[in-house]
Amino acid sequence: MNIALLGIGRMGLPMGRRLCEAGHTVHVWNRTRNKAEALIPYGAHVHESPADAAKLADVVITMLDHGGVVAEVLFGLGTADAMREGSLMLDMSSIKPIEARDHAARLSERGVDYLDAPVSGGTVGAEQGTLAIMVGGKAANFERALPVLQAMGRATHVGPTGSGQLTKLANQIIVGATIGVVAEALLLCERGGANMGKVKEAITGGFADSRILQVHGQRMVERDFAPRARMTVQLKDLRNALATSAEIGFEAPITSLFEQLYADGVAHGLSDLDHAGLFVELASRNGMS
Amino acid sequence: MNIALLGIGRMGLPMGRRLCEAGHTVHVWNRTRNKAEALIPYGAHVHESPADAAKLADVVITMLDHGGVVAEVLFGLGTADAMREGSLMLDMSSIKPIEARDHAARLSERGVDYLDAPVSGGTVGAEQGTLAIMVGGKAANFERALPVLQAMGRATHVGPTGSGQLTKLANQIIVGATIGVVAEALLLCERGGANMGKVKEAITGGFADSRILQVHGQRMVERDFAPRARMTVQLKDLRNALATSAEIGFEAPITSLFEQLYADGVAHGLSDLDHAGLFVELASRNGMS
Repeated sequence: MNIALLGIGRMGLPMGRRLCEAGHTVHVWNRTRNKAEALIPYGAHVHESPADAAKLADVVITMLDHGGVVAEVLFGLGTADAMREGSLMLDMSSIKPIEARDHAARLSERGVDYLDAPVSGGTVGAEQGTLAIMVGGKAANFERALPVLQAMGRATHVGPTGSGQLTKLANQIIVGATIGVVAEALLLCERGGANMGKVKEAITGGFADSRILQVHGQRMVERDFAPRARMTVQLKDLRNALATSAEIGFEAPITSLFEQLYADGVAHGLSDLDHAGLFVELASRNGMS
Repeated sequence: MNIALLGIGRMGLPMGRRLCEAGHTVHVWNRTRNKAEALIPYGAHVHESPADAAKLADVVITMLDHGGVVAEVLFGLGTADAMREGSLMLDMSSIKPIEARDHAARLSERGVDYLDAPVSGGTVGAEQGTLAIMVGGKAANFERALPVLQAMGRATHVGPTGSGQLTKLANQIIVGATIGVVAEALLLCERGGANMGKVKEAITGGFADSRILQVHGQRMVERDFAPRARMTVQLKDLRNALATSAEIGFEAPITSLFEQLYADGVAHGLSDLDHAGLFVELASRNGMS
């Protein structure tokens, strides 16, 4: 298939490589051209503008920082106008559900189809082609996109346009909140005289087990808060989730508490820690370190 | 080894069977004698009183409902006085850490050693010998108890006396809170128009994955709230955790929120639902079902 991939960053680079290796013809563009050139050895064609990359494509994939950048690339830099009628826009960036629905409506006026398809799994998932891809939009478009999506991970069609982004927010709520829950439980044990590492070991494998306990719980035991996903990014995700909750009239007391706790952590100078650094915020409230 | 097992209920029964099958000599007692008799076919000896069962034992195991019952059996019904000097009391009941330390001190005066060793994993874990066993007490006693513990599951020594019970509370905090987090995230998606079952499928395997998402998340998708662990039991566990936090001067804002949410659910008539029924409380606040 003829694919355009716009945005060759930490995620876009391994995703582009996998698309090339799956045998697709891949046209790429990035604001900083040299990042896109890293895909030339895999057979990708580098273009000077997103419109140039998009004009021949059956599917245009965006992997950009936030909704504002996606809107700028699609509607400010002429990508939408360059896309062929009947082609498919596959936005794999993490943006707000309301932005996704807006972009879908504007593309629909030009005869371009749309799916929102944000991912979870990070750069490791992108490299290994094991991303969890959460897809919102029409079922027929999902079927059409499957051969492309399957080169990058496991795709699930979760509902109409915007549902993929909503699911990504749900994912981020669960990740951010579970970090806090695990941190508070481990700190309670340590305050009571137990060995935190042994506590983690004891409860792993039971009903308290989670990816967060295994990965971020271990970071807490080792006091290793070197950033993978930063506190500020987690806070942004929770704020997006609360904004979306407010838009659709949903009361979210749990998300609200965790938004407050991450905000407290950021206010106390923990911005650049890994999101597991919420442990440090909860510890310092208790005079622990 | 000569073992006494006091309390042959839903957990004690399969635990007793495994101890018999591991080749130990097992003396059993239960307030309702006929439940203890179910272990006769496996070779257990049934006694009329806990003191009778305990007097020959190297290790006395209790598996009872709460701290009050444990105290009554140990100190009200003469078990402690009947135990041989140098023998070991292994309390596998879930009781408060402060009660465990009190029992340990009173037994120590009689020359009896003590470990608190509550479990997670339910009747299935007890039947399969795969319980997570969280052990507090002296390292030498832990080593001594290992051949007995290994017949029932995976034991981890987490710290001094009371640490096993503290770890069990941490386990219950994580379980109860994660149920709420998953429920709120799934409800947000449903309110926004996504398919909850597909959302669960999409995020399983990523960083949001947990035993709670897999097991209790599926109960939410199916609206199956037939009780395994009841809302009231989850509420009791969170209240015990908060009482222990207060005793040791630990601020627990996350546990506090979830205690309030389960209390609201119980106040709204959900007492006898499974603890995954917190979903129903969060749904009804939002006019959903």
